[in-house]
Amino acid sequence: MEIKKLKYFAGGQWIESKTDKYMDIYNPSTGEVQAQTPCCTEEEVNYAVECAKKAYPGWSDTPVFKRVQILYRFRELLEEHMDELTELVAREHGKVWSEAKGDILKVKEPLELACGAPSLIMGESLRDTSSGYDTTLYREPLGVFAGIIPFNFPGMIPMGWMTPICIACGNTIVLKAASMTPMTCMRLAELWQEAGLPDGVINIVTCTRNEANILLEHPDVKGVSFVGTTNVGRHIYSTAAASGKRVQCLCEAKNHALVLEDAALERTARGIINSSFGCAGERCMALPVVVAQESIADELVSYIVKFAKELKIGPAYDKESKLGPVVSAAHKEKVIGWINKGIEEGATLLLDGRNTVVEGYENGFYVGPTILDNVTEEMTVGTREIFGPVLCIKRVKTFEEGLAIMNNNPFANGSVIFTQSGYYAREFAKRTDGGMVGVNVGIPVPVGIFPFNGHKLSFFGDLHTLGKDGFRFYTESKTVTTRWFDEEEMKAKEVDTWDGSVGGDLK
Amino acid sequence: MEIKKLKYFAGGQWIESKTDKYMDIYNPSTGEVQAQTPCCTEEEVNYAVECAKKAYPGWSDTPVFKRVQILYRFRELLEEHMDELTELVAREHGKVWSEAKGDILKVKEPLELACGAPSLIMGESLRDTSSGYDTTLYREPLGVFAGIIPFNFPGMIPMGWMTPICIACGNTIVLKAASMTPMTCMRLAELWQEAGLPDGVINIVTCTRNEANILLEHPDVKGVSFVGTTNVGRHIYSTAAASGKRVQCLCEAKNHALVLEDAALERTARGIINSSFGCAGERCMALPVVVAQESIADELVSYIVKFAKELKIGPAYDKESKLGPVVSAAHKEKVIGWINKGIEEGATLLLDGRNTVVEGYENGFYVGPTILDNVTEEMTVGTREIFGPVLCIKRVKTFEEGLAIMNNNPFANGSVIFTQSGYYAREFAKRTDGGMVGVNVGIPVPVGIFPFNGHKLSFFGDLHTLGKDGFRFYTESKTVTTRWFDEEEMKAKEVDTWDGSVGGDLK
Amino acid sequence: MEIKKLKYFAGGQWIESKTDKYMDIYNPSTGEVQAQTPCCTEEEVNYAVECAKKAYPGWSDTPVFKRVQILYRFRELLEEHMDELTELVAREHGKVWSEAKGDILKVKEPLELACGAPSLIMGESLRDTSSGYDTTLYREPLGVFAGIIPFNFPGMIPMGWMTPICIACGNTIVLKAASMTPMTCMRLAELWQEAGLPDGVINIVTCTRNEANILLEHPDVKGVSFVGTTNVGRHIYSTAAASGKRVQCLCEAKNHALVLEDAALERTARGIINSSFGCAGERCMALPVVVAQESIADELVSYIVKFAKELKIGPAYDKESKLGPVVSAAHKEKVIGWINKGIEEGATLLLDGRNTVVEGYENGFYVGPTILDNVTEEMTVGTREIFGPVLCIKRVKTFEEGLAIMNNNPFANGSVIFTQSGYYAREFAKRTDGGMVGVNVGIPVPVGIFPFNGHKLSFFGDLHTLGKDGFRFYTESKTVTTRWFDEEEMKAKEVDTWDGSVGGDLK
Amino acid sequence: MEIKKLKYFAGGQWIESKTDKYMDIYNPSTGEVQAQTPCCTEEEVNYAVECAKKAYPGWSDTPVFKRVQILYRFRELLEEHMDELTELVAREHGKVWSEAKGDILKVKEPLELACGAPSLIMGESLRDTSSGYDTTLYREPLGVFAGIIPFNFPGMIPMGWMTPICIACGNTIVLKAASMTPMTCMRLAELWQEAGLPDGVINIVTCTRNEANILLEHPDVKGVSFVGTTNVGRHIYSTAAASGKRVQCLCEAKNHALVLEDAALERTARGIINSSFGCAGERCMALPVVVAQESIADELVSYIVKFAKELKIGPAYDKESKLGPVVSAAHKEKVIGWINKGIEEGATLLLDGRNTVVEGYENGFYVGPTILDNVTEEMTVGTREIFGPVLCIKRVKTFEEGLAIMNNNPFANGSVIFTQSGYYAREFAKRTDGGMVGVNVGIPVPVGIFPFNGHKLSFFGDLHTLGKDGFRFYTESKTVTTRWFDEEEMKAKEVDTWDGSVGGDLK
Repeated sequence: MEIKKLKYFAGGQWIESKTDKYMDIYNPSTGEVQAQTPCCTEEEVNYAVECAKKAYPGWSDTPVFKRVQILYRFRELLEEHMDELTELVAREHGKVWSEAKGDILKVKEPLELACGAPSLIMGESLRDTSSGYDTTLYREPLGVFAGIIPFNFPGMIPMGWMTPICIACGNTIVLKAASMTPMTCMRLAELWQEAGLPDGVINIVTCTRNEANILLEHPDVKGVSFVGTTNVGRHIYSTAAASGKRVQCLCEAKNHALVLEDAALERTARGIINSSFGCAGERCMALPVVVAQESIADELVSYIVKFAKELKIGPAYDKESKLGPVVSAAHKEKVIGWINKGIEEGATLLLDGRNTVVEGYENGFYVGPTILDNVTEEMTVGTREIFGPVLCIKRVKTFEEGLAIMNNNPFANGSVIFTQSGYYAREFAKRTDGGMVGVNVGIPVPVGIFPFNGHKLSFFGDLHTLGKDGFRFYTESKTVTTRWFDEEEMKAKEVDTWDGSVGGDLK
Repeated sequence: MEIKKLKYFAGGQWIESKTDKYMDIYNPSTGEVQAQTPCCTEEEVNYAVECAKKAYPGWSDTPVFKRVQILYRFRELLEEHMDELTELVAREHGKVWSEAKGDILKVKEPLELACGAPSLIMGESLRDTSSGYDTTLYREPLGVFAGIIPFNFPGMIPMGWMTPICIACGNTIVLKAASMTPMTCMRLAELWQEAGLPDGVINIVTCTRNEANILLEHPDVKGVSFVGTTNVGRHIYSTAAASGKRVQCLCEAKNHALVLEDAALERTARGIINSSFGCAGERCMALPVVVAQESIADELVSYIVKFAKELKIGPAYDKESKLGPVVSAAHKEKVIGWINKGIEEGATLLLDGRNTVVEGYENGFYVGPTILDNVTEEMTVGTREIFGPVLCIKRVKTFEEGLAIMNNNPFANGSVIFTQSGYYAREFAKRTDGGMVGVNVGIPVPVGIFPFNGHKLSFFGDLHTLGKDGFRFYTESKTVTTRWFDEEEMKAKEVDTWDGSVGGDLK
Repeated sequence: MEIKKLKYFAGGQWIESKTDKYMDIYNPSTGEVQAQTPCCTEEEVNYAVECAKKAYPGWSDTPVFKRVQILYRFRELLEEHMDELTELVAREHGKVWSEAKGDILKVKEPLELACGAPSLIMGESLRDTSSGYDTTLYREPLGVFAGIIPFNFPGMIPMGWMTPICIACGNTIVLKAASMTPMTCMRLAELWQEAGLPDGVINIVTCTRNEANILLEHPDVKGVSFVGTTNVGRHIYSTAAASGKRVQCLCEAKNHALVLEDAALERTARGIINSSFGCAGERCMALPVVVAQESIADELVSYIVKFAKELKIGPAYDKESKLGPVVSAAHKEKVIGWINKGIEEGATLLLDGRNTVVEGYENGFYVGPTILDNVTEEMTVGTREIFGPVLCIKRVKTFEEGLAIMNNNPFANGSVIFTQSGYYAREFAKRTDGGMVGVNVGIPVPVGIFPFNGHKLSFFGDLHTLGKDGFRFYTESKTVTTRWFDEEEMKAKEVDTWDGSVGGDLK
Repeated sequence: MEIKKLKYFAGGQWIESKTDKYMDIYNPSTGEVQAQTPCCTEEEVNYAVECAKKAYPGWSDTPVFKRVQILYRFRELLEEHMDELTELVAREHGKVWSEAKGDILKVKEPLELACGAPSLIMGESLRDTSSGYDTTLYREPLGVFAGIIPFNFPGMIPMGWMTPICIACGNTIVLKAASMTPMTCMRLAELWQEAGLPDGVINIVTCTRNEANILLEHPDVKGVSFVGTTNVGRHIYSTAAASGKRVQCLCEAKNHALVLEDAALERTARGIINSSFGCAGERCMALPVVVAQESIADELVSYIVKFAKELKIGPAYDKESKLGPVVSAAHKEKVIGWINKGIEEGATLLLDGRNTVVEGYENGFYVGPTILDNVTEEMTVGTREIFGPVLCIKRVKTFEEGLAIMNNNPFANGSVIFTQSGYYAREFAKRTDGGMVGVNVGIPVPVGIFPFNGHKLSFFGDLHTLGKDGFRFYTESKTVTTRWFDEEEMKAKEVDTWDGSVGGDLK
């Protein structure tokens, strides 16, 4: 059977790439190749930027109220196609049904935020800043943006985080979709077309890193939004900066949860299961480390192990499955390598997911839930991002010791405390380095009206994705200071000269 | 006579540098060396960062209401010392009295903005984002910032733009003062001490570029604010980005004013004189190019030449002087080089300031007002930053032609239109690339409650200095999502698990 | 043929009133009665409040993200039913097709604003307002609101201005629909039901003033929004205030446009036609007075008369009609009375709409476009609200004279200037008493992201409808100040006692 | 000895009243009359309004940056005169030194907020709301405001709450000072003069209720801010509403604290002492009711009684005193009447302050700390405002029972919970009717950047004093919608006519 070859999307057209290099897209649940996506050529990437640039004047000059009408229409299409899109995510990524559906719901949530663009891009005004001088600030779009996308949220990242606010503000965008999971993104682009989005406002390529670099240096690209590893993020921040762009890079994490002795243990354990093994651990807001207060550590761990064993492993699109495969064979090997490394470093293996086989899906990329106890700060398994269903347990005597361990970590996306105490909740929230804090909340991603605000090596830049930051990232401010003269003033010899930079307004 | 050797300032102490390299500080009005400032060593720069880091925990944990009390006190000291500070600026920089005073008034204006920090750093909150889940966002300080300062606003840039909001938000700062004009900055630091600022919150060094680079890569520096040339700005943005910092770089400009035929010509000409020759053209918001509509160009130019000739040239601290010297002998040579270049490129020299001599101040670095007519887009004299009292005239037939010439310029700080027409004012403000637009306003720097928002090669980064951007640049957001359980819920088997990244809040 | 008797709507049920008094609803285009609406009894009005109160706890406790899902769905239904709704407006009110459609579009615009409620009801937060004390502000709904509706915008006023933000914020509402035009409002309520709105969130009655007064004094009604005459508005403001409610009353107007001699005359005249005769003048943002600068007054007036004569008068639902009937026979008499009064007061009748008859619709309530020239400040016809297609011309020598005449008017909804001059536009906008100012814009109603902000006798209250004011009006703020203790602090003898009202936070 | 007769303050002059009626001002610590203040006549009150009206055009047209310079200067004078002002408060009101100082610190805090007016009165802007149409919103002052002041915070209420934001926004004000405590307010007015405030911006009268009513109906008064009893507040809201004014009335309270069994009992008791007996209970944010969970009620009460007995009672200006007199002999009688009433209603008198005599100050108006236990909902002593040092104890079994009792109260200024539990803190904050909530905070007045937001019968109006509400209350919004034409468009026959009220922007 011939394998389907995907096209790239530029200027409103689905175009067959001129490349002869294609990348395989697997169904991780079966291990089969289900399609192939092109390594777009340098010319094709440049062409996508050109299309975005061409679409910009018309789109940016469309009143924001009209622009968002298309977003509302896209929202309706999202709802109509929810099941189809969910299945697409499950098939290309391997996350189970509820998680795959969440990936699409997380397109809808930022979309709704972006529908509010007219309120949220308003500028500021003041009359008579000095007598006769008025100043008004406007927020304007910038031009073409680039989005560089990882494999793990094929819906949310390109079409929730990167696109809705960007285009609602009047910009156009070129997305470099994830090579392993580009299909959801592309299907969503078709729905955008159906919603009436003008050609060239959204463009999608897949390519290798070399061609992606074009986006970082292209003079017509005004900003870059990236989600991926910390090393690449740093490279992108620095490279795009060197060509004068604004940049936001959302990177790796190693989120810890501190469980204090007054926590609701069984309930906490259930929450941890979901947070640590959900999406097979392949998310930057996963919870791969639990820091347990010693007095309750044994009891907590026994709950966790018990619940982890109950997780039904199976193909993503089987609605009974609670844990699906990881995204690829290579990634499976990497995760197993980390488990081995953990054992080697001296951790205690409480539950071993390395040899997981799902009947009827023997070639799927499954890794079972894995629990390593007695992990210490010295072990890399407890400090580096694994991105798999591997949970490390660290044990501490006190709140202070736990907080210190957490803040020693170089990443700082999420951080969580489980407790009943108002005092420790407040103290933790204030003193943790984590940017998104949870109190009895395992995956403390805030709703999209707040920014997704990682700290330290989990983020490069200053304006985060979503929230009001999102609107700032995708607009630039312009101030207009005005002075008008009547007939008399036109002829005046003695003139007031606003001279802002010598305090003209203060004299 | 022994020349005074300045010290650096770290941890609240004025310390003599261990270096043997000192840089001369001239009085540009006389050409004499008035003091010397050290090339601080690598260790000394590191020590300044260390002091800032050490001061951070105590300062950031001081409630913002208490922090701003010190700002209020500093404001009183500024008013008390206004004349002394004005003279200091005039003596080290060479700008005339009203301009020098403006430099200090422009410390006060952002300071007053920073006094409002309690209102302006408030975060956001929403209860029941999902049933039982509340989210609150806080704006927290980041740690140590670095400020790298050019010679041209010895008061405003370090102590107006960089410091007040930075420290009001709870950060500490290391300033690399301008080698040619560090004295105002240092005197202001003394006043901060007098106002009660704790040791180490502000630290000041002078050094060469090598040592300044330490600040860009130091792991304890969380952000960098820079004002200077575009090439250096680009380097700083990229270098500091590579070490994960947030950055804002305010760079070169070549601001143009478009004068339409319905403008109030004489009044406009007076405004242009002030904007083009004020501060001897040494400011990024100067107006070095006038684009005149042909029908009125001759009349306009004749007014400009007439008024330019009337400018009294003299020493900065003589209150009669209307045009002072440029900052250094080298800079004088550079400006004269540009005038020569303009003539070479074919411009018409209407007024020649190259051979200006002020009686009694024969060694001062004076350049008289210089006007080059018939400058075209092809000439570098009309497109590159000169930073001297040199005005270029370009002539166009129409509004559209004028706008096009202006937008072709790679810089985009300020842009100005002179007209009586509401239509052209609106059209210009919308379509100009300039970030700070003036309508009948020569130097359209907005008051500090608005950001100083240059575009294109005049700025690198995304959050500008001052305005609400200022508070965003100097704070980082943290979200706290909370879920509490009562006794019943603690024991529940069926649990709701917020799972933000799979749309938990949307289910 | 039996005339249809409408029901009232309470608790999600359409209920036949127990009253025996019904009010006629006419089709103004034909003069026929098309339906009857009940004078609901005191008990029925109270029951509607009771239903709204009963629905409140569940609705207010539904997370705002879920509440707005129903608004999104209602928006889709609005689009689907656009033509049906437009026809309904045309048939009960008499405004022509494009205007009737506008009435429904003006439901959609505020609805879209209200969809953004999650962003717009966020509160504020600050940590360590004093050491250890944090404060967070939340915006909460209040309970039951009442809306009292005039006849002239049967869609926009109840379902655009009053309902969407009110319910998005978590409140419930009782609408007293207009007796003459309740059908659009009721049909829209059916669509709300179809969209999934819980029973009792919206309730609708029709009744006489006596029963409406119940809403002003009912202890369970927390706020009142009213649109209608100034006298009633004042009564409502005072009465509802006496029972402790928050109130907004949008009242009468007499908007003037000042036409300066540099205006684009023909274009201006076309704009005036639309503004003065659109909706047959039955809107508070109509333009019933033109103040013309003498130098161009004759030319301007001749254009206006010419274009007015060209207006095709006919039944509202005939898409060819440009001017429909007024709402009732009584109102027709009132308008004609005003024309007679104007003539009596000495105005010059340039165009007389009193004897307008439309063939085939001889019983329709038609009044043709009427123009009175040489109207002066002394004439009541030029200062009081007529609410019909009657345009008064006042003539002035100068801008200042025109502005003075306008500001002498006791009403201040909209005010307009037609000019090309940036100076006069700014001066007018600053100095006019009008709350909604137009520069070359005849009906300067801003889009709904801005408040509809009338001044003087055109408004009672302080928070206007729509814009961010809308969200303030429909929410109440609550601040929570928190201090937590650890084990040590719990036992402390020396205690810090926050004592906000003696400056505890400032010590 | 002749008793000093105070003057009133209008148009920058201190004027002797023409009245022959004067009201005594006591020193409550000694019971002696220390001065007399006039019952200003109707003409004098009208004159004060006239002065305020006359000052308005000049003051409102002064740029906000200049206006706040005077506020900064007044702030310096406040600091310089802190001790003098503190003593003045202590002498006329009777609160002890730290409380009297707090009264002045609470002038300074809102003043600092008001200094930030330039940032906080900025309006909003959007370009191309429809193609070619821009809208800008400005916040403008309204004119003359009136402030009506109670006796209990002679500094904070007139000069902290009512004046700084009012005048920073460009309004002028007439204050009706408290008859019993006008001297602090008047002294502060002198300092405003010294700070350079123009004549007529602040005006002060004292008078009886009849003359005060003038302010409610005067056509030149645009808004009224009132602090006092609920009955008067309701009258003022309704009366001022009837004449079209905006109004805010801050009224009575009966704040309760719920103490749960997990609270830090001793510490909580200390906090309660301060909150209940501070300012002799004469403040709307006092804590006159403690609702104790039965399991710990006895222990808690025994701590409270013990600490209450330790309070040193004495003259206000003796720095050793911890509890001063109440404001007047009449008020003392009233408070004692309430204690008698409580006993009569069946409460248990645990501590009796009725017969308190301070040696050497036998005629002072002293009431000692009084504690009534076993107070129930049925007793008026536990539900009505007493405004004296009388604490009622109510006992409940559960959190739910306690919350219900609190929400049954008709007042809702502050409400407090003492607990260690995050769950109960959140639940309480969400479900309490109180507008200002404390968690382990006895007097939960938030800092002035937040509004002072009472609910239910504790407040009439919708915009509270202070916070961002403060700036909304003292400004009115104006929107300006602009459309400009070029030469071609001026002549166009086909015209776009913005017609906001028929959805012109949506077509």
